[in-house]
Amino acid sequence: MSFYTLRYEGDRLSMLDQTRLPTEHVYVSLGTVEEVAVAIERLVVRGAPAIGIAAAWGVVLGARTGEDFGAVEARLARTRPTAVNLFAALARMRATHQRHGADVEALTAAAQGIHDEEVASSRAMGELGAAFVEDGMTILTHCNAGALATAELGTALAVIRTAHAQGKRIKVLADETRPVLQGARLTAWELHHDGIDVTVIPDGAVAHFLGRGEIDIGFVGADRIAASGDAANKIGTRGVAGLMKLHDRPLYVVAPWTTLDMTLTRGDQIPIEERPAREVTHVGEVRIVPDGVKVRNPAFDVTPAAWLAGIVTERGVARAPDIASGLAAMADQVRR
Amino acid sequence: MSFYTLRYEGDRLSMLDQTRLPTEHVYVSLGTVEEVAVAIERLVVRGAPAIGIAAAWGVVLGARTGEDFGAVEARLARTRPTAVNLFAALARMRATHQRHGADVEALTAAAQGIHDEEVASSRAMGELGAAFVEDGMTILTHCNAGALATAELGTALAVIRTAHAQGKRIKVLADETRPVLQGARLTAWELHHDGIDVTVIPDGAVAHFLGRGEIDIGFVGADRIAASGDAANKIGTRGVAGLMKLHDRPLYVVAPWTTLDMTLTRGDQIPIEERPAREVTHVGEVRIVPDGVKVRNPAFDVTPAAWLAGIVTERGVARAPDIASGLAAMADQVRR
Repeated sequence: MSFYTLRYEGDRLSMLDQTRLPTEHVYVSLGTVEEVAVAIERLVVRGAPAIGIAAAWGVVLGARTGEDFGAVEARLARTRPTAVNLFAALARMRATHQRHGADVEALTAAAQGIHDEEVASSRAMGELGAAFVEDGMTILTHCNAGALATAELGTALAVIRTAHAQGKRIKVLADETRPVLQGARLTAWELHHDGIDVTVIPDGAVAHFLGRGEIDIGFVGADRIAASGDAANKIGTRGVAGLMKLHDRPLYVVAPWTTLDMTLTRGDQIPIEERPAREVTHVGEVRIVPDGVKVRNPAFDVTPAAWLAGIVTERGVARAPDIASGLAAMADQVRR
Repeated sequence: MSFYTLRYEGDRLSMLDQTRLPTEHVYVSLGTVEEVAVAIERLVVRGAPAIGIAAAWGVVLGARTGEDFGAVEARLARTRPTAVNLFAALARMRATHQRHGADVEALTAAAQGIHDEEVASSRAMGELGAAFVEDGMTILTHCNAGALATAELGTALAVIRTAHAQGKRIKVLADETRPVLQGARLTAWELHHDGIDVTVIPDGAVAHFLGRGEIDIGFVGADRIAASGDAANKIGTRGVAGLMKLHDRPLYVVAPWTTLDMTLTRGDQIPIEERPAREVTHVGEVRIVPDGVKVRNPAFDVTPAAWLAGIVTERGVARAPDIASGLAAMADQVRR
């Protein structure tokens, strides 16, 4: 791929500024914890796995600049509440800090480990998910669960990239994903870049294409998955899942094991971030909602496990109708 | 109301330019058939009942400027294929023309008749639909089925206005309705203007609020309804209807009798307009889809009657589970 999402080199964290895509292709270079935290909040970098990796490198920058570990951890932890990968990455960095203190080399190795594991996970998820894709299928995806959300191939888009690399002739319908338009701006950009046939549709058009039999299967990412298999992902995913269920088409959630939060029994325990109204009221500088009118802007929703065909992780696939048991079996395997 | 959608006076058709809302509140004055046709195509005026009224006044302008009736009818008929009210209005104007020739006075009276009947219909639909609204309810609506889509109160929004006027404390959630944003720009504008509590949400957020029990009932308009009760309406309506069904909340279609097309047995016979890609790729001058990426932009979708709680017309309510029989009974009443 001729772009990268985030890369640590020369004691700085470089990342593609996703707020400026698709019209500009610009990298920003970050040297402090505060810069990393603001970049996460502003969605310069987004996607649950990428947020986790960025936070890990943020801890390394904090050690280099001599900041207090607790303050660094607290600052990064309050950037985005829903993606559990953020908290998983910070917990791993804390464990390293407990063993080695503010040793930059040890923390760098830990961050690199998180980074490398996400790359390996995306390849494994791509292989496992691509088994569900048949030649000639049209695949629906929502938001961006791609290279731009991870360290390499993506999660849902790792499946699509792998199926494409296997020579399967596929078409992708990408929901534009209001309000931040990650589907229109990011998924379309990275798939088009890779030569994969992609068409952008408004979020509201999913049911139309399902009704006409023009969607065969769907893959989406996740920001946090409860032990039940209920999955929080970008706002709109629950609607896609309900409509796939109603039209009897399979939808898979694809996410690395770090997205699982086995401490939560059900999806309604997942905290849902509400983001600034301006994401809805304006597109660029264009105002689309009248001044004075209220808006609601929940950034995520929760899809019940019962509406999914399965959850693909790098450890295997938890399949309907008993996704919870499949996840529990994978968790046992981790503990062993 | 301190605005109007369209008004014929001084031998010209004046209409609010809805493409410029909510930031500008500007009326355009049209004097020729071609100007009216282009205004309909550009969505300066939109909404099935308002398109029918605009076309009727277009025929009057054609008679004033001495244009051939057949050419006038053909030009207006090819503006928008889905809204049947357009064809119903042109058929009525043709009948007047057959009886009276290019008599401006007779054609003016016919157009005024269509205009006045839509006003009366909206009041009747408002009363009938408001019976389903209880004090304290939160009401979902999609697109704009309001004053801006009709001659006066609207269709779905006539129900909301009437319930509000009856003193029921209601809240409205308005889907923004990509790609043309009629919900964010138009529904929010006219309800806020009338002092009704309205909140704009992204289309993808409907399932989130349904899942949390924050939506009680829904009302939408229609552009054409088949004898089966299958209803074509703005893209996104089918998805809303499927999700309302899945969450066991009632959704009513509200439309004047002119929206019924009893010549069609099923919804899949309704022609669906595909509109220019630019509506999806840009918001104002801001490009949101990368250059070179394909888009699909169907302007309407078809909701199966089985997903609706009922269809409200000025003649009565056709209720689930046998909406087709209710419509057939109303049709008998019209013929008698």
